[in-house]
This record gives sequence, C-alpha cells and structure tokens, in this order.
Amino acid sequence: MDAIKLRPIGVLHTPFAVREGIPRQAAAARQISATIEIFPEYTAGLADLEGFSHIVILFYMHLIETENLIAHPPWDGKPHGVFSTCSPFRPNHIGVSVVELAKIEGTRLSIRGVDMADGSPVLDIKPYFPDLYPREEIKTGWMTGKISGMTDSKTGER
Amino acid sequence: MDAIKLRPIGVLHTPFAVREGIPRQAAAARQISATIEIFPEYTAGLADLEGFSHIVILFYMHLIETENLIAHPPWDGKPHGVFSTCSPFRPNHIGVSVVELAKIEGTRLSIRGVDMADGSPVLDIKPYFPDLYPREEIKTGWMTGKISGMTDSKTGER
Repeated sequence: MDAIKLRPIGVLHTPFAVREGIPRQAAAARQISATIEIFPEYTAGLADLEGFSHIVILFYMHLIETENLIAHPPWDGKPHGVFSTCSPFRPNHIGVSVVELAKIEGTRLSIRGVDMADGSPVLDIKPYFPDLYPREEIKTGWMTGKISGMTDSKTGER
Repeated sequence: MDAIKLRPIGVLHTPFAVREGIPRQAAAARQISATIEIFPEYTAGLADLEGFSHIVILFYMHLIETENLIAHPPWDGKPHGVFSTCSPFRPNHIGVSVVELAKIEGTRLSIRGVDMADGSPVLDIKPYFPDLYPREEIKTGWMTGKISGMTDSKTGER
C-alpha cells in the first residue's frame, strides 16, 4: 500500500522543548498551558469552535525517531504490544489528545492540558463530543487499575 | 513545513464499499461488524490488546477527494468551520473512531460499531481508556442537543 502524505494545518507551542519531561497524558497535565498556531490558510475552518470547552488534537510526534512494536511502560515493568499502549514509539507517530480550549484569538488557540512537545505539527482538530463515546461497560485489559502510574510519571523516566 | 509520510499498518474490511450510506458516527453503528486486517509485519504490536473491550482506530478516509474548510452538516442546515464538525471533507482526511473489539484471531480483529469505508487504510490502533478523558463539565457549542441528527443520518443524505 502506498505511503500517505499529510500536510500540517498548524504547529504547537508548548513548554516542552525536549522529549524528556513531557507528561505522559493530557489528563495528567490539566494546568499546563500551550498555544496552537493554525496556519493562515486554514483559519476559516475554526468558525464555531469557540463554543466547545474541549477539543481533540491530532498531532505528529516529530521528536520520535524510533519505533518499537513492543512497548515497555516504565510504570508497569512488563512489555506490552505497542497497540495496547500509549507509547509514542509507535508506527506513524500520531498522537491524539483531548485538551481544554481556553480561548481563540485569530489563528491562535490557547489550550490547557498539554502532553505534546514544542514544535509538534498539528494534523487535525475535532470537537470533543462525549455523547459519541461508548456508554456500555468498558474493559481496559492490562491497564485496569493502573491510571496513577500512567499519569504520575513523565517521559524519559525509567 | 514539509509533508509527513505515513505507512498503513493494516486495512479495514467493512460493508460500505461506497461513501454514500456510511453511518456518520461509530456511536450510530453499534451492530455493524467489520474486520481490521493488520499487515503481518505489525503483528507483534497486537500483544495484550485482547483484554480491551474497545479500541481507538485512526484511519485514512481514502474515498474523500475534496476538502472544504466550511462544512454543511445536512442534519443541521447551517454552515460550520470544519474543525468544529465531524465532516470527512477535512484537511488530511484522518478519521478517529472508538469501536468495540469483539475478537482477535492472528492478524484479524473483529470489531463492531463501524463508520468506515471498505478498504480504508488503518494508521494506528490505541487502547480505549476512558479514565484519560476529561471529567469536568463539557461544553459542546453548536452541537449541544443535536446528537440524534448526527447519529440518525448517513453520509450522502441531504
């Protein structure tokens, strides 16, 4: 199957210039603020977004240079298949984060709850609409009961 | 900023060979089954995924040939900026769906709740872990109170 080419629609400005120290999850970084700069040619697509308190950001984890199909979450101590983890060392390096949308000024979106590296290309923004997520019972496999390990550690910690 | 190149990790086999008639949301298609075929070189990444009842699929909406920064949801009747909608006619054509994981057999994942076209390249699979989603009050802007329009209609309807 051929490669798929994407064009960034914007770029993230965050406090995290290097990979080490980035919160592992947006859920663990509620108070950390950042800015999304949308490129001018995409400004029209922002109309009506200011009514949403939260948005879904798809971004490219540009600092990631390796891939590993087996992830080793340091807070768990056991290896897991990468598709059953949130490891950034995954094929295609796409991150998905739900963040709080604090303000929109022109092409700049102020957000809170940031687990992305500074300079990450933004691929898409979608509204966060919780009614569309599953309501039935959810089973979370090996992650069950492990949220504190996930949210209390940062990248680069071993 | 340079283009980003992605490699599909698999392909979707769904009942929807054409764009018209695809449910607008996975939430509206709970009973529709499909298969994800993961390419053999990525099989190792599936380890430990079978314990999860739901997964997040990132896929490429390969049937979409146009982009429009202004979306016109037919069930709403008003134009909206594309980033405040779920319109598939968005830059980069990446879809994100949370679906039920029914079974894994080798490289084939049986899923339920499918709003994707047959043949869509799969870019990533992540575990669905609801504890990581926002718990605070959520504001949903122009979509507020409109979920039935969103989930009851299908693509191609006007």
